[in-house]
Amino acid sequence: MTRKPHFKRVALIGIGLINSSLARLIQRDKLADSVISFSRKDETLDEARSLNLSHEYTNDLRVAVHNADLIILGIPVGAISSVAKVIGPALKKGAIVTDVGSVKRSVIEDVSPYMPEGVHLVPGHPVAGTEHSGPSAGFPGLFEGRWCILTPEKDTDNVAIEIIHDFWIHAGMQVDIMDANHHDQVLAITSHLPHLIAYNIVGTAYDLEAVTEREVIKYAAGGFRDFTRIAASDPTMWRDVFLSNREAVLEMLGRFTEDLASLQRAIRWGDGDTLEELFIKTREIRRSLIDAKQV
Amino acid sequence: MTRKPHFKRVALIGIGLINSSLARLIQRDKLADSVISFSRKDETLDEARSLNLSHEYTNDLRVAVHNADLIILGIPVGAISSVAKVIGPALKKGAIVTDVGSVKRSVIEDVSPYMPEGVHLVPGHPVAGTEHSGPSAGFPGLFEGRWCILTPEKDTDNVAIEIIHDFWIHAGMQVDIMDANHHDQVLAITSHLPHLIAYNIVGTAYDLEAVTEREVIKYAAGGFRDFTRIAASDPTMWRDVFLSNREAVLEMLGRFTEDLASLQRAIRWGDGDTLEELFIKTREIRRSLIDAKQV
Repeated sequence: MTRKPHFKRVALIGIGLINSSLARLIQRDKLADSVISFSRKDETLDEARSLNLSHEYTNDLRVAVHNADLIILGIPVGAISSVAKVIGPALKKGAIVTDVGSVKRSVIEDVSPYMPEGVHLVPGHPVAGTEHSGPSAGFPGLFEGRWCILTPEKDTDNVAIEIIHDFWIHAGMQVDIMDANHHDQVLAITSHLPHLIAYNIVGTAYDLEAVTEREVIKYAAGGFRDFTRIAASDPTMWRDVFLSNREAVLEMLGRFTEDLASLQRAIRWGDGDTLEELFIKTREIRRSLIDAKQV
Repeated sequence: MTRKPHFKRVALIGIGLINSSLARLIQRDKLADSVISFSRKDETLDEARSLNLSHEYTNDLRVAVHNADLIILGIPVGAISSVAKVIGPALKKGAIVTDVGSVKRSVIEDVSPYMPEGVHLVPGHPVAGTEHSGPSAGFPGLFEGRWCILTPEKDTDNVAIEIIHDFWIHAGMQVDIMDANHHDQVLAITSHLPHLIAYNIVGTAYDLEAVTEREVIKYAAGGFRDFTRIAASDPTMWRDVFLSNREAVLEMLGRFTEDLASLQRAIRWGDGDTLEELFIKTREIRRSLIDAKQV
């Protein structure tokens, strides 16, 4: 049973793709009496203001969280620790702090030490996004039909978890609760490694001597263009993801490289059966994805 | 200056995604007096027949090419040699043979020896496609705005080249003429390697113990799903591409692996600058693609 959530005051820390989508959603569905947007950059605040995304705008973290009952951290995970340190003393008793970062163990480690007694940290990750970033990139339908993963610790307040759960359900998501370490492993393969691979191949293509950049662009329709879309994702956000989820990413990368070496050998030896067998299997996974409405 | 091409009789050898799209286009724009479809599989012919894709249908290669002035080979490149051997003696003098394969040097080597005097081979590659295959997958707009590469040899008849050039222009493509070896290098990076990488990562995800297949599917929206689309492409066609373009694919794969090792090192050492620098560069490539209208 979920209820439509309602907050007195929401503080959006960072107003990029995810938080600006939430700003629109909160406004559309009247989920809060007031919303304040924080960004450290004046130009980002100006952009948010011109889009009328919230009631107030500030570049002062303590002003942003003052009196807020919900604080949503929508910033690169590498910046979360220093933000938590600043906002900690300014948080209202009973406030819920959540985030939308793609890595969860490091967020817990970076934020928990600064949370005062009576403030509830409910780490979250809405698995949704586009390659666009900034306040203008958001739209309220971003979360529709996708999954959100919450990774509360054992001692997290159940009511706070339920409120965040209902919030994402209301945004159109399905919600799973999972251990933070497991989240980081799952996302390492479904999101972090795909991004790393995409960044890498686009970089490789760029550096070739035998093939010009112009040629790469002209003939991108053969498959390459799908990688360029992913490789256009926010550079700072993704740098932080790889650094914060280092172990799981390196583990998955190791498996990937091992498998790739075996494919390489199959090509070198002209072993068509091994290739075709894999390609038939991967096609089935696509079908499962279509059946699960996750395409 | 291009003219609308017209043929007395077109033979479509294979009636999958590309050739069935061409069948629809030829019919729509009245580019031929008659069209005959060949497939070795009765069920594929039945499917083509039920879609009313051509005037005639046959599973006999010699019947298919009899009296045809244009023969389009739309079959996996690994099957082209044996098909060329059978159709060679049955080809009409003056006929043009072209193909749509993703590898060009091997096609020239496999087909040329069987072409009789007075028959013109114009190898071609429309760089367009989807992850779907079979007669039902085609649509006449598939080629719109994309590039087609022709790789004629030095002694190829100029009139024949011009006719095939005009044919693809009429299909909505821009046409480039290129050396076959260079084509195979360019496509190795813009198409073959992306497919190999996508097949590989989907296979890796499938084989993990720590993460279930169900989890991979649920959280695919984080980037993985784009890879599953590419990794759903026709298994036989792609097996043949890797085997036929072995050298160029292995060369590009070598470069990719080298670059990946350096990214891996950057993650291990926490070298965020190297990561961010690459990610900013790859984002620019995406912008070039958007400017070139190839997204």
